[in-house]
Amino acid sequence: MSAIVLASGSAIRREILENAGLCFDIVRPDVDETAIKTAQTNNGTNPADIALILAETKALAGDQNNGNLVIGADQILAFDGKAFDKPTSMEEARTRLLAMQGNYHELLNGVAVAKHGEIIFRAKNTVTLHMRKMSVVEIDTYLDAAGTDILSSVAAYQVEKLGARLFERIDGDYFSVLGLHLFPLLQFLRDQKAISF
Amino acid sequence: MSAIVLASGSAIRREILENAGLCFDIVRPDVDETAIKTAQTNNGTNPADIALILAETKALAGDQNNGNLVIGADQILAFDGKAFDKPTSMEEARTRLLAMQGNYHELLNGVAVAKHGEIIFRAKNTVTLHMRKMSVVEIDTYLDAAGTDILSSVAAYQVEKLGARLFERIDGDYFSVLGLHLFPLLQFLRDQKAISF
Repeated sequence: MSAIVLASGSAIRREILENAGLCFDIVRPDVDETAIKTAQTNNGTNPADIALILAETKALAGDQNNGNLVIGADQILAFDGKAFDKPTSMEEARTRLLAMQGNYHELLNGVAVAKHGEIIFRAKNTVTLHMRKMSVVEIDTYLDAAGTDILSSVAAYQVEKLGARLFERIDGDYFSVLGLHLFPLLQFLRDQKAISF
Repeated sequence: MSAIVLASGSAIRREILENAGLCFDIVRPDVDETAIKTAQTNNGTNPADIALILAETKALAGDQNNGNLVIGADQILAFDGKAFDKPTSMEEARTRLLAMQGNYHELLNGVAVAKHGEIIFRAKNTVTLHMRKMSVVEIDTYLDAAGTDILSSVAAYQVEKLGARLFERIDGDYFSVLGLHLFPLLQFLRDQKAISF
């Protein structure tokens, strides 16, 4: 049975896999995500494929070629035809929420598994989130209450916390919203006999 | 500003509202849910309407006619044309999972708000969950690992925990899967000026 490794610094992905009862180690892959995103965007790669390329890159970077199954994952926000990364300041988060309110946006997930230096599994999916119309006052009230924790999210909100109050509809399963396309990953790990059920 | 009261003994509904930043009191309504379900089922009421009737009954039972906004909620599982309540034993949970594996089922949510002895808000929705094909051994492994905690769920699993490993697809937002049709409820509370955003 191969050991499972999560190549990610993401607290929420770790929590999802822990809650699902998986035993795994964690490594933080040394990947310059911003450089990859910029290069791929300039190449004209579509955002969903960029998420997958980043997932694969992280999985390969975390793979020590010892037979472990190394999971990489990434999530990109797509809005109005453009891809967005995590906001770097509350002001940037504010600008983004002001643009996104009253409209829908997409979260694009990529997940991959590397073993012996090769990608042996990849999957991607998209979830759609409909943000309700909000006034500037409402958005500022939210940002004050939610605080800088939201800067850890690609989308400038945490739907599992106060961010729930920004939405009128979410089309997509919980794990995908949080940043992990979980079900096909679990099926792959079952097929590999890395988990018992 | 009216105070908010949750008329429910459900830990997960309490957690959802707390995570969304609401301040509220909790009362446990004295409602014989089983008697109502049985009577309504015998009347030929469809399961989605039964969930709504139960939500309204709980909201009214928790309403002390003091101007508070009293939230009631219920969730019913529908599978193969029949409505199901929480399993009462691990053996019943096992029988149900054996029947549901490899098929889809629905979770039907009802939510209502009472004030001054009247229902002033009601909403319902349905989420669809696709359970993967599983062997008897897999189901027994799951039940052993998950333990009696699952008996608190109408569906004999907790998707936010080990239950994630039973599924291949979930069509519905997280809150609705857990048992609360949250977004229209929040909008109603905003309209009532019971929450600030």
